[in-house]
Amino acid sequence: MRLRNKPWASKVIVGNPQIVEPNPKECRGKWNEIFGNDNPIHVEVGTGKGKFVTRTGEAHPEWNVIGVEKYDSVIITGVERLQENPQPNVKLIKEDVQELTMFFAPKEIDRIYINFTDPWPKNRHEKRRLTYEGFLKLYDEVLKDNGEIHMKTDNQGLFEYSLESFSRFGFKLKNISLDLHRSDIQGNIMTEYEERFNQRGIKIFRVEAYK
Amino acid sequence: MRLRNKPWASKVIVGNPQIVEPNPKECRGKWNEIFGNDNPIHVEVGTGKGKFVTRTGEAHPEWNVIGVEKYDSVIITGVERLQENPQPNVKLIKEDVQELTMFFAPKEIDRIYINFTDPWPKNRHEKRRLTYEGFLKLYDEVLKDNGEIHMKTDNQGLFEYSLESFSRFGFKLKNISLDLHRSDIQGNIMTEYEERFNQRGIKIFRVEAYK
Repeated sequence: MRLRNKPWASKVIVGNPQIVEPNPKECRGKWNEIFGNDNPIHVEVGTGKGKFVTRTGEAHPEWNVIGVEKYDSVIITGVERLQENPQPNVKLIKEDVQELTMFFAPKEIDRIYINFTDPWPKNRHEKRRLTYEGFLKLYDEVLKDNGEIHMKTDNQGLFEYSLESFSRFGFKLKNISLDLHRSDIQGNIMTEYEERFNQRGIKIFRVEAYK
Repeated sequence: MRLRNKPWASKVIVGNPQIVEPNPKECRGKWNEIFGNDNPIHVEVGTGKGKFVTRTGEAHPEWNVIGVEKYDSVIITGVERLQENPQPNVKLIKEDVQELTMFFAPKEIDRIYINFTDPWPKNRHEKRRLTYEGFLKLYDEVLKDNGEIHMKTDNQGLFEYSLESFSRFGFKLKNISLDLHRSDIQGNIMTEYEERFNQRGIKIFRVEAYK
């Protein structure tokens, strides 16, 4: 994703604490309290411009949805989207996914989404991929025992890598599709990228990992 | 694969006991003795016309290679191939893969190959797929602890199914490719089908499963 400098972004982010949680570390272990319900918590890592979390929250009022994105200039679009179309069950966290266990307690999360994240194709960048073992360790810590990771990508190399990485770590795999939009998998919610890729006829790969 | 009636086939099969082992059940636990060496044993299930086992045996004199195929009219081509191009380290078994544990002892095998087998796409035929749980149980029994299953197919549905089936059974996955002939996986030996598919530009899916 191209990052544009948006100097005004940080002001808008700070000015909307009901959308971007200002103190996520203090919410650790208390997210259900903050949402004021016992609904399951779904977290998208690398949430980008927030279309997926907004749509997911809208389609599923019975879930709490949190998007984690570190870049001001990207998350700002999510903030604007949620200003226009408020979703009380959707929140954003402007932090690095590396810090995930700082703002979620062990077994606090029901599901993690990894959608169209940077493939980092060079071997020396493996550790940056959001399905690298180091990240899986974080997800494993914060996920409930019956929690799931739902991953989508158009990138063949990242998908091959991720299947192996999940498997090696001890996750099992289900609902695999090598062509999501021509599969019988129901209830898919498209991301911004996915809409564009799908229009161009690019195949989308998908998998669910579970313990 | 289309099955042609070849009434003369059974005679040729019986007439070549050095190629098609006539009493595979008596070989159970004794295959290394029969080959007269301590080399690893690789087995292809559903070996068809035998090009893969012949080529593999030729390329790897340090392996013993056994092809299992139940149809006279198919295995006969393998027999003819091995008559023309004898490979002392290649043998065929004319039996149903269902019977695998009748002619291999627990932990006797180092590697199993599943190449371009029938996808049986209908749900009600799931149990016939050579990566169905019932077959994995057989493979698991005869494979060594560090044994591997190497699978190739052009069929997307069978591949998706197989990844999930391996994973659910407790196998881990490695060296996955969603486009084998444009991957950096080395040492691939092509089957008869694979040559044709590759010429037509059809992508080949590949995975290795291990415990």
